[in-house]
Amino acid sequence: MTATTAKPTSLSNIPLDIPTPTLVIDKAVALRNIKKLADYSKKHNLGVRPHTKTHKSIFFAKEQVKAGAVGLTVAKVGEAEVMANACNDLLLAYPALDPFRTGRIADLAKTHTMRVGLDSAYAADAIAAAAVAAGSTVGILVDLDLGFHRTGVQNPAEALALAQHISKTKGLRFDGVMFFPGNLWGDEPKMIQDLAALSVNLDEILLTFRKHGLEAKIVSGGSTPTAWLSHHVAALTETRPGTYIYNDRNCITVNVATIDDCAARIIATVVSNAVPGKVVLDCGTKTLTSDRLILDPNTAGHGYIVEYPKAKLVRLSEEHGEMDLTGCDRVPKLGERVQVIPNHICPCVNLQPHAYIKHENGSLEKVVVDARGLLS
Amino acid sequence: MTATTAKPTSLSNIPLDIPTPTLVIDKAVALRNIKKLADYSKKHNLGVRPHTKTHKSIFFAKEQVKAGAVGLTVAKVGEAEVMANACNDLLLAYPALDPFRTGRIADLAKTHTMRVGLDSAYAADAIAAAAVAAGSTVGILVDLDLGFHRTGVQNPAEALALAQHISKTKGLRFDGVMFFPGNLWGDEPKMIQDLAALSVNLDEILLTFRKHGLEAKIVSGGSTPTAWLSHHVAALTETRPGTYIYNDRNCITVNVATIDDCAARIIATVVSNAVPGKVVLDCGTKTLTSDRLILDPNTAGHGYIVEYPKAKLVRLSEEHGEMDLTGCDRVPKLGERVQVIPNHICPCVNLQPHAYIKHENGSLEKVVVDARGLLS
Repeated sequence: MTATTAKPTSLSNIPLDIPTPTLVIDKAVALRNIKKLADYSKKHNLGVRPHTKTHKSIFFAKEQVKAGAVGLTVAKVGEAEVMANACNDLLLAYPALDPFRTGRIADLAKTHTMRVGLDSAYAADAIAAAAVAAGSTVGILVDLDLGFHRTGVQNPAEALALAQHISKTKGLRFDGVMFFPGNLWGDEPKMIQDLAALSVNLDEILLTFRKHGLEAKIVSGGSTPTAWLSHHVAALTETRPGTYIYNDRNCITVNVATIDDCAARIIATVVSNAVPGKVVLDCGTKTLTSDRLILDPNTAGHGYIVEYPKAKLVRLSEEHGEMDLTGCDRVPKLGERVQVIPNHICPCVNLQPHAYIKHENGSLEKVVVDARGLLS
Repeated sequence: MTATTAKPTSLSNIPLDIPTPTLVIDKAVALRNIKKLADYSKKHNLGVRPHTKTHKSIFFAKEQVKAGAVGLTVAKVGEAEVMANACNDLLLAYPALDPFRTGRIADLAKTHTMRVGLDSAYAADAIAAAAVAAGSTVGILVDLDLGFHRTGVQNPAEALALAQHISKTKGLRFDGVMFFPGNLWGDEPKMIQDLAALSVNLDEILLTFRKHGLEAKIVSGGSTPTAWLSHHVAALTETRPGTYIYNDRNCITVNVATIDDCAARIIATVVSNAVPGKVVLDCGTKTLTSDRLILDPNTAGHGYIVEYPKAKLVRLSEEHGEMDLTGCDRVPKLGERVQVIPNHICPCVNLQPHAYIKHENGSLEKVVVDARGLLS
């Protein structure tokens, strides 16, 4: 794995004056990640609508907007309500259809350009009813299943039927289409091939729309693993990566980031060394989650320990992270601190009531994770 | 699996007037679970020190105390600070050793009987220094590794050395020993055999103590899977189960609970049915976590759906739970609500800013999850 070959960050970089376990975000690295994607997207004439589920931070959302984002993506209405402070154009990339969501969406649409991605007439009608009641209009993207098989209409006929339904429904505005290629990561030549195949299906849907007088102004798709290959999908108008701002061990493993690109790290303390061959860190599943490494779910462990690249987080309990020391050339001491790059950063951020931003001058600022733990 | 054979709870039991995904706790079932363990423990002359990491609720902690708990267990100092509102006798079953924890422990010891389980002289000295500075005394349990190999001293000699060190250290009080048998679950005859072997090792340590004039007043050990077999460890003075108050799919699978004993359920809404053969619930890893089923981690899926016992939560994203309908005799509708029993309830509770208590008369009360998301 790429992760094990890089040189460890200096121990002196670990903040010592904050309680652990905690999340520290290197601002310079996060801003560099934002700029890198902005530059790539500009070069390819692509919009970026970053998914804010990763950082859940108004501050970083504003930085993404400053860097040229065309809008922001959210997964929950609560996140939309928070991110309404950072941007006027919000996409809820989630098939919200129940009355606890639709009314709030319609309310947001009074003051913001509010868009929702969905895959059923049922959801469209529910949002339309709320929009009519609120006197607002909600933009709708038809969610397409282009291979991940989670949500999304299945073929051009279904896509057309839903788009036509949306176009005719009061309170709604047909804005285009969206898809999430969650099945694509890893081997680049294979991904390019898969994106080409995806493009064929996407183009067929868009052509069907045009034949029936419907134009998808927004064609929104992408993830962090596909972000840098988005130009292989000609019809795309915008991408929606989330993780790219912080990156994580998954990103390293699928070769879209290096260790140095990982802006968000869990700082942990060694709390036990009683069992031979291992030490215990104070980060368990209530800090790192149980999310596994997508390319090696069963044997890769639960995170990358920057100062001990050969160590492995072999087992997590809720508050314990057991770090196997096999192959390590030195042994961590009790009370020592380490930096852990989680397998998947997004749900880890969601567990933190606050984080620390490490400024360019090295100072730490305690900040609230604005949209964490919102339920719907 | 036991879970698939029980009859589904009536759909009419699902609360409809609260946003999803959310946690609903059936108070009567939780109180019944508390009473059942209290009765068992009384019968066997065992104390119970429930682990509050499961419910993180002052209300339920007080109910456990009312039912006769000898004290409460916590995993974090923050949890101790919250549970100090429910009980005077608190055990931090965690090797706290850094200055962000020790000072707060010493402060709590001014007003409460505060105990800490630990496995190093380093941790003991750190707590002692804080206690001396605060003018308080902290009770210490020597943490023993009796088979789980996570934390804990390894043998009678190490246990004795640490106990003697504690006994001689100002600011500390030697209270006894603790262990966590996290390796024991499942087959009952095998567990009884394993607990007998564990007892032999435990007794040897306690005998070694006695030979050196040390008496372990507290011998604390156990988990929910071992809770009902605790009488097979003669030396035990108290047990520390946590999950038993709510139970979960793991508890069902290892035969310590039935579906009806599962007091805490996630209420979820069907938000998509666009992909053939499945529907999508609005509960993903940010609600159910990625914790796998301990007896079947790779194929059992991510929770038990009460109304659709043959369905399987085959894949979770952060906000999506994909429910495979293979074998189901009916198909959930869009907008329909279901109850999900998570694989592991403890980290799910930790994700909820609030929960709903379902009272005996069926009414729902929105309550804060008092100790959720505390970091250290």
